[in-house]
Amino acid sequence: MSDSGKSWVKAEDVARLAGVSRSAVSRTFTPGASVSAKTRAKVMQAAEQLGYQVNIIARSMNTGSSNFIGIVTAGFDNPFRSKLLSPLVHQLALHGFMPLLMNADDPEQLAPSLKQLLSYHVAGVIITSGAPPLSLAEEYLARKIPVTLINRHADLPGCDRVASDNQQGMQMLVEYCRQRGWQQVGFIGEHPHHFSTRERYAALCSAGPDLTIQPCFIAGGGYHAGRAASPQLMHCQVLLCATDMLALGALDGLRSAGNASALPAVTGFDDIPQASWDPYHLTTIQQDTDALAQHAVDLLVTRIADFALPSRHRAVPVKLIVRDSA
Amino acid sequence: MSDSGKSWVKAEDVARLAGVSRSAVSRTFTPGASVSAKTRAKVMQAAEQLGYQVNIIARSMNTGSSNFIGIVTAGFDNPFRSKLLSPLVHQLALHGFMPLLMNADDPEQLAPSLKQLLSYHVAGVIITSGAPPLSLAEEYLARKIPVTLINRHADLPGCDRVASDNQQGMQMLVEYCRQRGWQQVGFIGEHPHHFSTRERYAALCSAGPDLTIQPCFIAGGGYHAGRAASPQLMHCQVLLCATDMLALGALDGLRSAGNASALPAVTGFDDIPQASWDPYHLTTIQQDTDALAQHAVDLLVTRIADFALPSRHRAVPVKLIVRDSA
Repeated sequence: MSDSGKSWVKAEDVARLAGVSRSAVSRTFTPGASVSAKTRAKVMQAAEQLGYQVNIIARSMNTGSSNFIGIVTAGFDNPFRSKLLSPLVHQLALHGFMPLLMNADDPEQLAPSLKQLLSYHVAGVIITSGAPPLSLAEEYLARKIPVTLINRHADLPGCDRVASDNQQGMQMLVEYCRQRGWQQVGFIGEHPHHFSTRERYAALCSAGPDLTIQPCFIAGGGYHAGRAASPQLMHCQVLLCATDMLALGALDGLRSAGNASALPAVTGFDDIPQASWDPYHLTTIQQDTDALAQHAVDLLVTRIADFALPSRHRAVPVKLIVRDSA
Repeated sequence: MSDSGKSWVKAEDVARLAGVSRSAVSRTFTPGASVSAKTRAKVMQAAEQLGYQVNIIARSMNTGSSNFIGIVTAGFDNPFRSKLLSPLVHQLALHGFMPLLMNADDPEQLAPSLKQLLSYHVAGVIITSGAPPLSLAEEYLARKIPVTLINRHADLPGCDRVASDNQQGMQMLVEYCRQRGWQQVGFIGEHPHHFSTRERYAALCSAGPDLTIQPCFIAGGGYHAGRAASPQLMHCQVLLCATDMLALGALDGLRSAGNASALPAVTGFDDIPQASWDPYHLTTIQQDTDALAQHAVDLLVTRIADFALPSRHRAVPVKLIVRDSA
């Protein structure tokens, strides 16, 4: 990591050219600091001329706080999590924060990634759905680093969470099943310890006491899991799947196993881009990724300002998207 | 960004508990610095007891170099780019670098993202395929910040690049067409200015002078572009698509427009997860994302050590994956 040959323009250089003090340059680039209009104009002109960039690293050393936010997620290649990443990065940027991405796919990477985020003195951490265990959240909270969970659950002081309204979503699906006269309902989910699966299954059971519900929980949770599970539920009228990836696999599993004219209907949850592709036209519950990101960042930013706030939970409304699969 | 209530353990605290100087703590955590075994042991024990974390921000202030690498990419929700992101983050971590992610989807975000990466004194930048214009690379190079391009082309001093071997891939596809007796070949690509489209089309033309090749370039480049393009090439025997996303759309476009028994064969390029799904079983060229990431980081790390190296280009071998679509 040699710095040889690199020529970062320093605040001192700007001060010299502008004919002002080093501190006047610093105050010009510090939001809220006092500096005369005349001095500011001189500094800005010199900075522009030299191509000066504020050194955020230096600033965070001076103020003692960093503007890094850890995003801990499991697998970037899950289409729903990829869809969430863009608005998260965008919302953080609007608040002047820079995300540090931690892939928690590999359980052995969790401890090193924790240490690494701590070494950057992260101002806060966002933990998304998927594999990262919640013991991770406790590690940050113990150091008074705010944590926001997206589509996860935890009752930990200092920890806020935002989740799509799973109850509303399952209620909509149950209502839709009743309209179509479907009584025999299959449910395909990941491991029942998985937050979204557990919460959506519980919501289905409480919304549809009049339905016969047969669950099938299958490890992994992707396309191939759904494809393996669905032929076991061929006798149902409709298969409600905990995620779109499970539902797309379920549709293909049914087609490979049965007679096209007598297949159960299938629904998903997420509305990933692939849900609208021709072979699927998946009826599903759309999660509002922009709103999830906006709330997550708002919760985190307000807690960074005041760590002592009581824990907050926000539910983001969802939408039923009716296509041909059900 | 108040730091109130946060209790980072400081090097001073470790020094006090260990009964050594502040500088002995610093030397213990600086690779290569001199410190006696006895002092080191005392420091490590105190650090462990207090939960001390090296402050990387402070260290980069002291050494003048940062360990941040900018990754500038366009859209995280493209399955190929998502697939590349995990090994990139992993390879950077192995070299002690932390990626800063910049989404260059929105052309208006390019200038601010450039400024932002400069303000973090990034040690280097990786620019991936997709939208980011190459003028961006020049901005970094002008400041002697090394740039590595993945699946892009540029002859700029200080700029290295790694790309899948497009010539090898198209050669394999042309060979396969000859074996199957296909003479009438359609090509579906993005805008011809797009690097992968341009290079794969040129490779196809030079590998198959005996073939009749009809190109169709279509804006956007995703599933929907491929779906719109393919019905125009219904008369071909095979459609070679510049990416898997175009190919998946092309397959669905053909099916929606024609008679299933007389449809052209279709091939892709990438091997994204969806290529193996039941409705597609896409014959394609597999890009080795692990190798692309490994080379990209190796090129960048060696240039960070010596900015004056001549520009280097590495081609990563690809593999033909034969499935049912062709």
